[in-house]
Amino acid sequence: VPTPLMGEALAERFTDVRAFTETLVEPLSPEDCVVQPMPDASPAKWHLAHTTWFFEAFLLKPYLSKYPIFHPKFGFLFNSYYNALGPRHARAARGMLTRPSLEEVCDYRAHVDRHMAELLAQNESAETARLIEVGLHHEQQHQELLLTDIKYTLWRNPLRPAYRDGTSNDEQVEREAPASFDIPHSSFTQFSEGLYEVGRDTGAFCYDNEQPRHRVWRDAFELADRPVTSGEWAAFIEDGGYRRPELWLSAGWAAVQREGWEAPLYWERQKGGGWRTFTLSGMAPVEPAEPVCHVNYYEADAFARWAGLSEPGLRLPTEQEWEIAADASGYDPAAGDTADGGRLHPIAPAPGPGLRGLAGGVWEWTASPYIAYPGYAPPAGALGEYNGKFMCDQWVLRGGSCATSATHLRSTYRNFFPADARWQFSGLRLAR
Amino acid sequence: VPTPLMGEALAERFTDVRAFTETLVEPLSPEDCVVQPMPDASPAKWHLAHTTWFFEAFLLKPYLSKYPIFHPKFGFLFNSYYNALGPRHARAARGMLTRPSLEEVCDYRAHVDRHMAELLAQNESAETARLIEVGLHHEQQHQELLLTDIKYTLWRNPLRPAYRDGTSNDEQVEREAPASFDIPHSSFTQFSEGLYEVGRDTGAFCYDNEQPRHRVWRDAFELADRPVTSGEWAAFIEDGGYRRPELWLSAGWAAVQREGWEAPLYWERQKGGGWRTFTLSGMAPVEPAEPVCHVNYYEADAFARWAGLSEPGLRLPTEQEWEIAADASGYDPAAGDTADGGRLHPIAPAPGPGLRGLAGGVWEWTASPYIAYPGYAPPAGALGEYNGKFMCDQWVLRGGSCATSATHLRSTYRNFFPADARWQFSGLRLAR
Amino acid sequence: VPTPLMGEALAERFTDVRAFTETLVEPLSPEDCVVQPMPDASPAKWHLAHTTWFFEAFLLKPYLSKYPIFHPKFGFLFNSYYNALGPRHARAARGMLTRPSLEEVCDYRAHVDRHMAELLAQNESAETARLIEVGLHHEQQHQELLLTDIKYTLWRNPLRPAYRDGTSNDEQVEREAPASFDIPHSSFTQFSEGLYEVGRDTGAFCYDNEQPRHRVWRDAFELADRPVTSGEWAAFIEDGGYRRPELWLSAGWAAVQREGWEAPLYWERQKGGGWRTFTLSGMAPVEPAEPVCHVNYYEADAFARWAGLSEPGLRLPTEQEWEIAADASGYDPAAGDTADGGRLHPIAPAPGPGLRGLAGGVWEWTASPYIAYPGYAPPAGALGEYNGKFMCDQWVLRGGSCATSATHLRSTYRNFFPADARWQFSGLRLAR
Amino acid sequence: VPTPLMGEALAERFTDVRAFTETLVEPLSPEDCVVQPMPDASPAKWHLAHTTWFFEAFLLKPYLSKYPIFHPKFGFLFNSYYNALGPRHARAARGMLTRPSLEEVCDYRAHVDRHMAELLAQNESAETARLIEVGLHHEQQHQELLLTDIKYTLWRNPLRPAYRDGTSNDEQVEREAPASFDIPHSSFTQFSEGLYEVGRDTGAFCYDNEQPRHRVWRDAFELADRPVTSGEWAAFIEDGGYRRPELWLSAGWAAVQREGWEAPLYWERQKGGGWRTFTLSGMAPVEPAEPVCHVNYYEADAFARWAGLSEPGLRLPTEQEWEIAADASGYDPAAGDTADGGRLHPIAPAPGPGLRGLAGGVWEWTASPYIAYPGYAPPAGALGEYNGKFMCDQWVLRGGSCATSATHLRSTYRNFFPADARWQFSGLRLAR
Ligand SMILES: [Fe+3]
Ligand SMILES: [Fe+3]
Ligand SMILES: [Fe+3]
Ligand SMILES: [Fe+3]
Repeated sequence: VPTPLMGEALAERFTDVRAFTETLVEPLSPEDCVVQPMPDASPAKWHLAHTTWFFEAFLLKPYLSKYPIFHPKFGFLFNSYYNALGPRHARAARGMLTRPSLEEVCDYRAHVDRHMAELLAQNESAETARLIEVGLHHEQQHQELLLTDIKYTLWRNPLRPAYRDGTSNDEQVEREAPASFDIPHSSFTQFSEGLYEVGRDTGAFCYDNEQPRHRVWRDAFELADRPVTSGEWAAFIEDGGYRRPELWLSAGWAAVQREGWEAPLYWERQKGGGWRTFTLSGMAPVEPAEPVCHVNYYEADAFARWAGLSEPGLRLPTEQEWEIAADASGYDPAAGDTADGGRLHPIAPAPGPGLRGLAGGVWEWTASPYIAYPGYAPPAGALGEYNGKFMCDQWVLRGGSCATSATHLRSTYRNFFPADARWQFSGLRLAR
Repeated sequence: VPTPLMGEALAERFTDVRAFTETLVEPLSPEDCVVQPMPDASPAKWHLAHTTWFFEAFLLKPYLSKYPIFHPKFGFLFNSYYNALGPRHARAARGMLTRPSLEEVCDYRAHVDRHMAELLAQNESAETARLIEVGLHHEQQHQELLLTDIKYTLWRNPLRPAYRDGTSNDEQVEREAPASFDIPHSSFTQFSEGLYEVGRDTGAFCYDNEQPRHRVWRDAFELADRPVTSGEWAAFIEDGGYRRPELWLSAGWAAVQREGWEAPLYWERQKGGGWRTFTLSGMAPVEPAEPVCHVNYYEADAFARWAGLSEPGLRLPTEQEWEIAADASGYDPAAGDTADGGRLHPIAPAPGPGLRGLAGGVWEWTASPYIAYPGYAPPAGALGEYNGKFMCDQWVLRGGSCATSATHLRSTYRNFFPADARWQFSGLRLAR
Repeated sequence: VPTPLMGEALAERFTDVRAFTETLVEPLSPEDCVVQPMPDASPAKWHLAHTTWFFEAFLLKPYLSKYPIFHPKFGFLFNSYYNALGPRHARAARGMLTRPSLEEVCDYRAHVDRHMAELLAQNESAETARLIEVGLHHEQQHQELLLTDIKYTLWRNPLRPAYRDGTSNDEQVEREAPASFDIPHSSFTQFSEGLYEVGRDTGAFCYDNEQPRHRVWRDAFELADRPVTSGEWAAFIEDGGYRRPELWLSAGWAAVQREGWEAPLYWERQKGGGWRTFTLSGMAPVEPAEPVCHVNYYEADAFARWAGLSEPGLRLPTEQEWEIAADASGYDPAAGDTADGGRLHPIAPAPGPGLRGLAGGVWEWTASPYIAYPGYAPPAGALGEYNGKFMCDQWVLRGGSCATSATHLRSTYRNFFPADARWQFSGLRLAR
Repeated sequence: VPTPLMGEALAERFTDVRAFTETLVEPLSPEDCVVQPMPDASPAKWHLAHTTWFFEAFLLKPYLSKYPIFHPKFGFLFNSYYNALGPRHARAARGMLTRPSLEEVCDYRAHVDRHMAELLAQNESAETARLIEVGLHHEQQHQELLLTDIKYTLWRNPLRPAYRDGTSNDEQVEREAPASFDIPHSSFTQFSEGLYEVGRDTGAFCYDNEQPRHRVWRDAFELADRPVTSGEWAAFIEDGGYRRPELWLSAGWAAVQREGWEAPLYWERQKGGGWRTFTLSGMAPVEPAEPVCHVNYYEADAFARWAGLSEPGLRLPTEQEWEIAADASGYDPAAGDTADGGRLHPIAPAPGPGLRGLAGGVWEWTASPYIAYPGYAPPAGALGEYNGKFMCDQWVLRGGSCATSATHLRSTYRNFFPADARWQFSGLRLAR
């Protein structure tokens, strides 16, 4: 059992994380915050309220005596999926909640923060400290979702409005495609065969799904020094990547035909050649050296198969390979392209030796389905629903993105999404 | 060709109608105005902008020289269904438009109003006067839709918030069901057989679908003195109305089973007996003497068949019968239960002789499919798409509702909705 | 109340009608008879059994003492839609019934026929005679449906197999498009304004929906001397008929885009120009002079609007106009292009004066929604479900087709289908 | 590379396998063979033709000179999913093929068999021998699918007809539920931790997905001596298994609610208590000691979680654990409850020591998603589509069933289906 953050340090982290959420909605109007663009995405206002409800439900109600519930129906409205905590508003109808208003939700946040300050000031137990830590990581997860969801929401508007600053006028970004570009060929780092350990065991916070730490056998493998770039993806498109069934999983090819995918989500072909893409700062040219982003598992898998035509053996890494390599290479979120940088669009990792761009930038799809580690048991109670019940037909992504906070990341972190999900900041790195 | 309203009178009407729209959104927050609760309903903000676009597209662009378009993409965003005016934003995605903001849409309204004032001040032609009149009636139609759509939107929120004042707390309305109630049995007015004329021919404004005035033969018939009441509907429910297939059209019965309908839209059974309903002022008890509201054609038809079991021959009137009776009885919107009264919920028509509650209250479903009158031809140009292309698989309603403006109504007015539509202020009156 | 056919005449008609059904399935294998190509169409075997069940349910069980039910579950399997007669097998799952086998169904038919012979030999009442007549017309209706449904079934097979004889090899029919063709321009017969009577009153059998005979006022109108031809339809296609929204009802245009319609059902463009079509005798060239067939109401309506661009006033006739004209012109099914001829594909009506091709050939869409005649009341009991409950969102077709038996037709006959139905032998005739 | 079966032995196996397919359809009528009960299942006739097409496409066309194609369109009709071999008939429309008739398909089989005999008689290469072996295993796979698909087809018929013999009258099977039953508690066999090898490397035939043989590390584990029984499943139901969300994966619980599952597929509650089930011999009582069958992954996973409530640590085994255990225990299909026994319904494995019922009986769901083994590469050419492109969102089942041929099985065999598939002969065995 890890020792949790406690006392002053925890209270400070609480204040920081909560404040950062509010920073993220600053550029948004109440109107922007209420709309739900698809069932899998949620309105910003809902994220604000749900993360707050989490502290109310898991901390204040059970641990703060005489805590006055803010509103008797908010538990119904803002419980996401915890069956143990009662019935709830339908996920696909989150966009119907014009009330409570954004302002009322901000009051709700203030109310809960005030009482959490009280709880934090009490002689806290390791138990509550651990739960608060979960609540803060939960909120950081939703911070990224808030960004991916508002990006998708704004993109569904034909005006293509920017989340903040940037060029919102989509005509302006049309510009010459770069005549040529020079992306250094990726190099590979070797790892030898052996019995490795993966998963988290001691020290600081982690989610249940990263445990228990356990042994795995791996044959020798190599991992690319950087993620696949947008320039390489453009070459895949030019080579018929989206038109050749032999490159795709069966379900992926069916989805390509059904959905008409011809490029990553948000990409648009420029009249004069080249591509532009929708970013949180509005439409922008696709930079060839940037990591490719907003591709789903089907696309990542097809790209790897295509790359393997030229260099046999290329493939996606497993999550174990990824973690072994990250641990060996000194995975460092603080130095990564994360939300802390505030750019919110992936940038080409700086040149240098070894594995670059592991932390932040884009989440990297792995070849590993999201399943339980050997010996995994979900925690008792409602929190047991946090991760375990989703271990079915999703795929693990590793490393974090330009929209993840650095303090939320660690090398053992397992993100997961279904094979067809494109609206996350998701890319890939090759292995062999 | 009718003589249109012109000059001062027209300018004043323009100001009044436009201002009333803005009055209607006053109780709403920007968040309330952006959400679309189902494909058939539109956000309030969209109604505000679309009615404005109508004047821009049909008046300012063609008739005001040097009119400066407010925004180059608003034509795309706010064209509803006029193929002749170019491509447009998908109807079902109107709720994605968090931008332009409500404030920008209000600026758009002001911009168009300013230029319309200029146009109105010019030496206007009968042609523009007639188009302005269409635009104002169009806006009045959307005023009612704005109310029905926001009612449906607020109802989809589990908090059941009120549009304005009223009791928004849904617990408070639970109250004793009336021990008994005394609704006078409806009486019937007789009309003799003959060759009648229906439809509009001379005088003031009407829509194309009310023309040409033409002869119809009718056998003798009788029309009930008042709409069917909520008390009568409660009796229908108690008698198994929603569980007896023999009362329903085949498609209606399929819909009952698929949708699980057990009462009119917005009705909820009270724990202590009786019913309450959602209104624009929040939850309220169902008053037995009120006209029943929010039933669709299938329900109206089933009720008539059920009523016919006790009194053979009872049925819905045809739209011709309705119009013949209304014309004979002195149809008077100014005295009706309309939006001008501001109650926005139907009230029992005052006692008295003759046909009561014809104007306002609830739209009355007729037994008439919405088709062209003999000799009908839609106007040339884009306005030809206003009515004609919807003459298929919809049903005519007559009389207006508590959400219609009195100045929008006339005895020849043909409203129309599909058989399964329940979110309008729609009820029925029996004939035989 | 009409006097029914009775005695010998009825028994003979019973034998003839029942035998004709069996003739229709002769070219089919048991495999052909079991498959259901879409929810609205039924397997041939189901038609064979359902028409038989009709006599069992409405005649033998109530009127033949000691009638031995053939199989206790056939009532469940072969009841189509009579709620009054109990639950039933889902319509869309009729194709799941590999058992009973075709052979068993034929035994079922023989069993019922044997007992019907017994009933017919008894001193029958007018009541049973009338019910038998209904059963025989019911069977004749299903004979046509059997043909339309098997045509659609065979067409869904990429081999395009013929129902019988004909060229089943679809390569062979490719042939030169006619260099030109000469279809005489249609002429119009005039009818003067007046108070007419329509609907059936006395004499022989009719369905309830043809009654009561009643007065209608009609202004003067004209009806084309023949149905619209395939050559005229080809001209409509060439003129962009399926690509011009202004020609279509709103729902029709949505359907064109959703379904990708570019020509009547079964038409395929020939490589060398011109069209070929799938018939019950296999693929065949589209003959320009033939009545166009397998168009739905949306298409018929769009064609009329297109024709009206050249000759203002052209439109579809109402069903009343059609009946008035047919009665005035001596409607004669015995001389028509009906199933009795055995060609089962419409042929150009013979030249001559007056209205040609009214009986048989193609069902002609009218501009009339299928609703109750004034004073209509469905019969008591289960038979009340035969017609009345379908009077919603369907359109009336008149005249009969090349797949209807002549003895099934009369000038007052009202056929009806939804606006998007294309698999019937449906065409149109213009009015003005 | 394994040495293939060749010469006489191969020819004999060819004859045996092909003949067994035909034995399987003997009890069926042509009508039974044509219907498709859902998109995932295929008509028996289609299986007959598709397995034949496989030999035509992969052997006769490339390797038998002057082979006369049987029918030019059969490649289109009977190609299942091989993009490399051209376009094909839509999977969901396989039930539309009333032609070719069953008889013609039998002729097709005879034609291909004749020419295969020719090919087999030639001085064959190891390459063709290997392909023939694939074709025979392919046909054996389809033999099982033919049985599962016809079982599902017959069950969709309210008459619940038997595939052969048995009691087809569903009333007769109602009988007393056993007052009590005595299923010995399962015991567990222990396996120690270590570096194991799994997958196939040398010797006889296997599919590509069983390769390469590779090392895996496993911690110590235990495997139950027998599959979970129907009696145990009934206890799970009684204990609210289908009503307790905490037992289910999130997607599984959503499916339970959407589909209304309350028991395994084919189970029906008897009025007098206990359960009966639909088998290929008609309705039969559920025998408590039999392996439970026709449960999907969601159900298997929920059962394991439920079992874990009483005995912590119970879970589904991984496919590696299963294979390690099977190899250690002497997996022996020849002694198993397979299709060769002809019972086609799982029977309780005979008492005895060690792991019982591994081969045949029911396919056992494992906790392993179906993904590529490390170093896996699909074969070149169209056969590369056989397995590899389905490695996404499916789960591995091991061991074979009562509907699998013994000669088709081996301990390394990986069967796979989506988590919601219930129509296979699928059960489970617990591990810990
Ligand atoms: Fe959450
Ligand atoms: Fe409008
Ligand atoms: Fe019928
Ligand atoms: Fe296959």
